[in-house]
Amino acid sequence: MLETFKVTAKKTSKGLQVETDARGFKFILDEPEALGGTNTGMNPVEALLCAFGACQSIVCASFAESQDFNYDEFWIEVEGDLDPEGFMGISDARNGFQEIRYSTHFVTDEPQDKIDAFSDFMDQHCPVSDNLQNGVKVIRTAAVKESR
Amino acid sequence: MLETFKVTAKKTSKGLQVETDARGFKFILDEPEALGGTNTGMNPVEALLCAFGACQSIVCASFAESQDFNYDEFWIEVEGDLDPEGFMGISDARNGFQEIRYSTHFVTDEPQDKIDAFSDFMDQHCPVSDNLQNGVKVIRTAAVKESR
Repeated sequence: MLETFKVTAKKTSKGLQVETDARGFKFILDEPEALGGTNTGMNPVEALLCAFGACQSIVCASFAESQDFNYDEFWIEVEGDLDPEGFMGISDARNGFQEIRYSTHFVTDEPQDKIDAFSDFMDQHCPVSDNLQNGVKVIRTAAVKESR
Repeated sequence: MLETFKVTAKKTSKGLQVETDARGFKFILDEPEALGGTNTGMNPVEALLCAFGACQSIVCASFAESQDFNYDEFWIEVEGDLDPEGFMGISDARNGFQEIRYSTHFVTDEPQDKIDAFSDFMDQHCPVSDNLQNGVKVIRTAAVKESR
């Protein structure tokens, strides 16, 4: 059954700063000063990598027991390469990340083959990974002139 | 010139909760109780929508002047449809969002055709939108067994 998730993002009065909101949970984003911001939060492409890393982490925590995988600690390192000249219109590089790489880290007594297999399983069940790897239709439904 | 952005995500000791970190900026994610979490933060797919909304907002704030677009306030509403039976392995629905929709909102004196055109421009220059619409290569470089 389809569930619809909704969020808002609103430019604040402070430079490039944005306040986002999902179910009342607020999350401030900004850009570093080198990219024109006031550096009050991570930027959207970093947030994208965090969403990916968190999604993998939650899949790990949710499915470990049913997959008979025991671990004591888990973390993930995620990085992506982006050429800002793309979105600035200076070069024809794509706007977004050109590649995303990650490594999974487990404190565990499981053997390496089970660690590899469970990391494969995690990726195969990760919603954010699916959307990043396979893309998703994004539709603008309206561009609204709001009254003052 | 390629810039590499790096983040980490680490499962905390609290259920499905994850702490992410980008340049020292922390961002806590979790799941609502209905999805097995303790509801201490937005979840990763909501964070993905927030990253998209924030990216559009920052493109708006960064490029309005050079595009001769004047506005006093901007916000964006973003929503996505996801079938949790997909990643739970109950159905063959895809794991991630099946569709993402958004609407841009401007408090402005500009006419509707300029609002539409600037919304088009924003989407054409938005890094997160590019990655979501066109996909990106995601590579696991390692699955590491960490010592205690």
